[in-house]
Amino acid sequence: MQSRTHTCGQLRASDVNKEVKLVGWLENFREVGSNLGFIVLRDFYGTTQIVVETEEMMKVVKPITKESTISVVGVVRERSSKNPKQDTGDIEVVPSEIKVLGKCRYNELPFEINHSRNADETARLRYRYLDLRNPEVKKNIVLRSNVIAALRKAMTEHGFMEITTPILTASSPEGARDYLVPARKHPGKFYALPQAPQQFKQLLMVSGIDRYFQIAPCFRDEDARGDRSPGEFYQLDMEMAFASQEDVFAILEDVLPPVFAKYGTYNRASEAPFKRIPYLESMEKYGSDKPDLRIDLTADDATELLSDVGFEPFNDNVIKAVVVSDFKESRKFIDKTCEEVEVQAGNKVYWFRVDDNLEIVGGISKFVKPKKDEVIEKLGLKAGDLVLVCAGKKTLAQKTSGVIIKTFGAKVPGHMDKEQYSFCWIVDFPMYEIGEESGELEFCHNPFSMPSGGLETLLKAERGEIDPLTITADQYDLVCNGVELSSGAVRNHDPEIMVKAFELVRLCEDDVKAKFPAMYNAFCYGAPPHAGIAPGVDRMVMLLAGEDSIREIIPFPMNKNAQDIMTGAPSEVSEHQLEELHIKVDLPEEKEEQ
Amino acid sequence: MQSRTHTCGQLRASDVNKEVKLVGWLENFREVGSNLGFIVLRDFYGTTQIVVETEEMMKVVKPITKESTISVVGVVRERSSKNPKQDTGDIEVVPSEIKVLGKCRYNELPFEINHSRNADETARLRYRYLDLRNPEVKKNIVLRSNVIAALRKAMTEHGFMEITTPILTASSPEGARDYLVPARKHPGKFYALPQAPQQFKQLLMVSGIDRYFQIAPCFRDEDARGDRSPGEFYQLDMEMAFASQEDVFAILEDVLPPVFAKYGTYNRASEAPFKRIPYLESMEKYGSDKPDLRIDLTADDATELLSDVGFEPFNDNVIKAVVVSDFKESRKFIDKTCEEVEVQAGNKVYWFRVDDNLEIVGGISKFVKPKKDEVIEKLGLKAGDLVLVCAGKKTLAQKTSGVIIKTFGAKVPGHMDKEQYSFCWIVDFPMYEIGEESGELEFCHNPFSMPSGGLETLLKAERGEIDPLTITADQYDLVCNGVELSSGAVRNHDPEIMVKAFELVRLCEDDVKAKFPAMYNAFCYGAPPHAGIAPGVDRMVMLLAGEDSIREIIPFPMNKNAQDIMTGAPSEVSEHQLEELHIKVDLPEEKEEQ
Repeated sequence: MQSRTHTCGQLRASDVNKEVKLVGWLENFREVGSNLGFIVLRDFYGTTQIVVETEEMMKVVKPITKESTISVVGVVRERSSKNPKQDTGDIEVVPSEIKVLGKCRYNELPFEINHSRNADETARLRYRYLDLRNPEVKKNIVLRSNVIAALRKAMTEHGFMEITTPILTASSPEGARDYLVPARKHPGKFYALPQAPQQFKQLLMVSGIDRYFQIAPCFRDEDARGDRSPGEFYQLDMEMAFASQEDVFAILEDVLPPVFAKYGTYNRASEAPFKRIPYLESMEKYGSDKPDLRIDLTADDATELLSDVGFEPFNDNVIKAVVVSDFKESRKFIDKTCEEVEVQAGNKVYWFRVDDNLEIVGGISKFVKPKKDEVIEKLGLKAGDLVLVCAGKKTLAQKTSGVIIKTFGAKVPGHMDKEQYSFCWIVDFPMYEIGEESGELEFCHNPFSMPSGGLETLLKAERGEIDPLTITADQYDLVCNGVELSSGAVRNHDPEIMVKAFELVRLCEDDVKAKFPAMYNAFCYGAPPHAGIAPGVDRMVMLLAGEDSIREIIPFPMNKNAQDIMTGAPSEVSEHQLEELHIKVDLPEEKEEQ
Repeated sequence: MQSRTHTCGQLRASDVNKEVKLVGWLENFREVGSNLGFIVLRDFYGTTQIVVETEEMMKVVKPITKESTISVVGVVRERSSKNPKQDTGDIEVVPSEIKVLGKCRYNELPFEINHSRNADETARLRYRYLDLRNPEVKKNIVLRSNVIAALRKAMTEHGFMEITTPILTASSPEGARDYLVPARKHPGKFYALPQAPQQFKQLLMVSGIDRYFQIAPCFRDEDARGDRSPGEFYQLDMEMAFASQEDVFAILEDVLPPVFAKYGTYNRASEAPFKRIPYLESMEKYGSDKPDLRIDLTADDATELLSDVGFEPFNDNVIKAVVVSDFKESRKFIDKTCEEVEVQAGNKVYWFRVDDNLEIVGGISKFVKPKKDEVIEKLGLKAGDLVLVCAGKKTLAQKTSGVIIKTFGAKVPGHMDKEQYSFCWIVDFPMYEIGEESGELEFCHNPFSMPSGGLETLLKAERGEIDPLTITADQYDLVCNGVELSSGAVRNHDPEIMVKAFELVRLCEDDVKAKFPAMYNAFCYGAPPHAGIAPGVDRMVMLLAGEDSIREIIPFPMNKNAQDIMTGAPSEVSEHQLEELHIKVDLPEEKEEQ
């Protein structure tokens, strides 16, 4: 019991008259008189009130600085005025002995513990050990730990084996920027920290492992964003041998919803099977490949319908319309919300309404009125509908409709069933596209995903029997509440199909080999078909905690500038260390002149 | 079910007549005739025999190279000659369809899968994905995964929260060599990979976390050894707030034995409480701070007894004697075993025996005989005893006695109860010693452990009331079967005691601060007493697997030269990458001349 009889969250009315020993932080001491004072004692588990009732004990307590750690021996007593908000609010402890275990040297703290979230972020990170004493801050770290433990448990119960893959590995030509580690024993050579265990997990499949997972640390030397910490992040990395898309979906549809429902801000999550939306349909209908299905709005293509109404911005453009039913908000609301959308989408938004007499009114109504009946019919309009319209090249029009949906959906009452975790799969990603710059056929997403239909389909495209742009990949995205949690795929495990897929974009076997030599070699020794995915742990925890900053769900986050200001990382190192590693610092010129 | 109806380890007699689909690697194909052949199909779970009985199917199977992945549809049939050694040995599958899923391009493999352990290590590591297909190799990786999962489960059940600490952190002046990571956004500065999460776990204690653990990746840039992989290794890192040595012992005594008994080569492990041996006693009695308690031999101090027998090597030396009872081996055995000890200890070993007539015979008996009665009494000798004697300066004599105990204990029948995991704690480490070079008082082990008795004891030493060499630290080692699994300690959490401990060795507050500034600062804001330990996961798995090379229990190990020859790490990187990181390669001169 770690030198105590009870924790600070444990004592109840049933413990009255017991002699107990508590330990914790002196959170507060309220002096009421010369022989009366109240201590709030805090540990990991809660807080307990200690009542000092003698002048003698007051003398012991008064010199103790707040946030010192102390031990309290005393007797539990029922409180005369109970505090129903506090777990231990029925009781208080009358101390016979109070000792200081670890003195806080300072009378003033950099911020008040229980209001640390309002403090300057630099101060919070510098004194993270004080920030974390705030139960509001701590709870996210506890949540993170519980969520990861629950994910591990669920994966293990589904027969997945956790295997840790190397952290000191080879630099890869693909993807983001690598963190490099100079190799002392190999002058001029470097290890790299893995951006993901992608290669190793596929090698495990070739090694005969059937169901692999790992809560995997990943490293990308990219600048910070709201949802991305500089440096390291974690993935629930998984891969299955002899598996298809269906197998991967079945596992995650079983593993994630219970964890989300149990640990989330909302206690409701999609049940299996999750809705599947082909990529092109998602772009058409939701204006996004990350639709938030808690919102009931969708976009219609109104190009044919509205291109001839004589409204100049519609000319020669794709036109998308989003119908918001039962709209009761003001004109001002419309203008303000359209403005929000315009800022985010970088495109104009137009609107009109259908009034109670089924007349088209407001906004661009004068252009639409002449086609009133057709518009009402084609868009299925009813009295009270607000119609938001945008136009532009296809991609821009789609994107704008997506911003309309997310913005109006969240703001207009009745169109978002918010308190849930709504999952979907985006499927059928195109394998190829016409490159905007090259004007030629290029890979669209991941060249190492399996083309649907395999070799057969590629050969048909090669023979000109089908348009290569119609080839889809067995690749999928997992989306929750409009947040992309992960991309996954059935991998292309067959060197022959790989080479053929590359040949369609004018590359050859050597290009395949150059990308991932170890994996290509391994695939030549008999690889199983395999598929996987790697949902981001940090993003999942952010969703569950309802936090917008990734730093709130990491125990010791770096700041936006990739520094740990508490430990002073990164820091200068000795010349000797650099010599041993066979490197020299090569400062930018401005720095050298200082 | 990943495209199969059953795994290759699953089918039993009760499945006879079912139509099944299996997938896996074609391990072997034995052609018996033009219309008879036997396939061994292997997956992660086992092997199944497939009987080809038609010329048509023979034509399908014959061109398939070994180690290709295939799917087999067929009907289960009872075998006429069953194989009790194989889980699926009661049945075979008669195929109606066999398809190749992933072709092995080669007719010859670099080694035979099921004998890969006999192959050259370089080949094994280069083709690790083939090596791992060998069930004998794979089983250690499965064991590792199971052991780690069991440790996690046990720690969680004991109320410990797993918290991941940063991997990109600050270089530390203490300990081994750091791996450095150049910081792109901070020219001339470097992150370091953590040698252990020591600082962070103590900061978590100051943050109010009560029970922390982590299966923590640790990084030390040291050369490889049998039990140490270059690069990364894992610890079961744990720490408890408001805790003493007793709390830490109680947890590990509860967590480890069931895991060892369940997953080990031996199914028996020490029960709580583990034997506790003070450091000085361990050196005296076992000649080691890592005693193997499965051996019943101990060392006696025979300095007083034998220094005057006129045997020159005993003069002015510490003399240790190890009595091996019931010794029935030959003179040749003694000579050979003494030689082994001498090579390992770098010191001579002498011996004599007690014959059936209680006469002292053999070896150095002529020197001992004159004191026969006293020797027999003091060493408690009986007929049949072999007495091994060594001499030297105290440390050398102790060390030699330790090698005698381990060598003779393992070889002489009846003195080692081998098939078990025998744990003990080494406790009461001295805090200070007289430095061999300086001749002055120095820290003996870890300066940041709590001195037993705290400030009071240090003040007594300062005032000259006690000898500082008698001060012990609340520090402990966990030892199993003669292997040190970890050092742990009650930490010194009090800056005042820390400074005093440093002052005794002529250092000051600035020296304390310089070592771990973040931790020292944190301790000034009210730290709880705390204690912890971090048993090495790799060492535990080696013990459980009964392997001598650490590379046998790591999924993708580096070679002894710190290279991953499969992925080519470490490797050269582009000039652009180095420029972005503000470093230049600075090759040793010989290299530059090439």
